[in-house]
Amino acid sequence: MDLLKQKILDEGEVYEGNILKVDGFLNHRIDIPFMRQVAKEFHRLFNNCEINKILTIEASGIAIGALVAQEFGCPLVFAKKTKTKNIAGDVYTSKVESFTHSTTYDIIVSKRFLGKDDKVLIVDDFLAIGNALDGLISLVKDSGATVVGCGVVIEKGFQHGGDKLRAQGVNVQSLAIVESMDSKTGQVFFRD
Amino acid sequence: MDLLKQKILDEGEVYEGNILKVDGFLNHRIDIPFMRQVAKEFHRLFNNCEINKILTIEASGIAIGALVAQEFGCPLVFAKKTKTKNIAGDVYTSKVESFTHSTTYDIIVSKRFLGKDDKVLIVDDFLAIGNALDGLISLVKDSGATVVGCGVVIEKGFQHGGDKLRAQGVNVQSLAIVESMDSKTGQVFFRD
Repeated sequence: MDLLKQKILDEGEVYEGNILKVDGFLNHRIDIPFMRQVAKEFHRLFNNCEINKILTIEASGIAIGALVAQEFGCPLVFAKKTKTKNIAGDVYTSKVESFTHSTTYDIIVSKRFLGKDDKVLIVDDFLAIGNALDGLISLVKDSGATVVGCGVVIEKGFQHGGDKLRAQGVNVQSLAIVESMDSKTGQVFFRD
Repeated sequence: MDLLKQKILDEGEVYEGNILKVDGFLNHRIDIPFMRQVAKEFHRLFNNCEINKILTIEASGIAIGALVAQEFGCPLVFAKKTKTKNIAGDVYTSKVESFTHSTTYDIIVSKRFLGKDDKVLIVDDFLAIGNALDGLISLVKDSGATVVGCGVVIEKGFQHGGDKLRAQGVNVQSLAIVESMDSKTGQVFFRD
C-alpha cells in the first residue's frame, strides 16, 4: 500500500535493536482517517472470504481491529494478555513470547466468542518474529474456527515471521513489508 | 441512551463485588455496528465543543475511542499503562489505582501527542470510582491542553466517581448510569 509506505518514510523513526517507531499514526497517537484507508485496504484484500469475525490482541491491535471490523460489518474480539496462572476452563489460551518486552505471557479468549462456525481474519499492527500471530492462530484452531488469513499493517520482513507463516500455508497480507532499516541513517527499505 | 440500556438489560450479567459483565458487546467481543451508534451519540453530545483529540486508556477504551475519533474526524491517543519506574522525561505521567485489579500503575502519554492547543474529549468504557478518569484529566492538565469533557459508556452511579467529577465542574456524559444492581436476581436499575 503506497500511501502507507510513504507515511512510514515520512513519519517513521528507526532505532537500534530493529525498532521502527510509528507511534505518531499507528500505536499511540492513531491517525484515524488514515487508518480507515488502511482498514479499507484489508477489506479489499479479504472481501470474498465470508469473514464474520475479526480477532486481534490488546492493546495496539484494537484500534485497527475496530476499523477493519467496521468495514466487514462484523464483531471484533480481542485476546487479552494475562500473567494469571490459573485460567478458568471457559477460555481458550495460548502462550506468546514477547520480543519487545523479553517476557512470556498467556493470551486468552472467552470460549463464548470463538467457535466452529467462525471465519476469522486476524489483524495486528506489527509482525516481526510472528509469536503473537502464532498464538492467535493456535487459539482459533483450538476453538474449531477457521483462520481465513492474517492482515498486518507493517511486517518486518527481515525477522521472517511472515515468511514462516506463509510457508505453513497461512494467507498473510502485510500492507508494508520492511526489508531492511538502518538506525544510523534512518533509512527504511521495503520489499518489492 | 435507551438502546444501550436495553442492551445492558438483555446481555449484561451481574456478579458479586459490583461487577457488571458486558464483555459480549463492550470490552472483549465488541459489537462494532452497535458501538458505532454509541460513538454517534457522543458526537451528538459534544458536537459544538471544537474537539480535536480523543484520549482514552488501554486496553478496553481503545475500540470505542477509535469509533468516537472517527465521528469527530480527529486522532485518537491512548494512554499506556506501565509499571516501569524510570519514565523518561518525554512523557506526561500520572498514577492510577485499579479497582478491578487491586494494584497501582502509571499511565503515560508522549509529550508529542498532547499540547496546549488541544481540546480533548476523554472517552472510556466504564466509570466507577473514577480513578482512571482522574489520571487522564491530570495528564491533560499537565500538558496545558483543555479537557472539554468525559464520555463514558457505562457509569456505575453507586460508586460515585461521576458525581465527584461533576462536582469538580467536569462535563461527564455517561450514556447509561447504573444506580444499583443485584447479583442474586441479576437485576440492573438505571438512574433517571
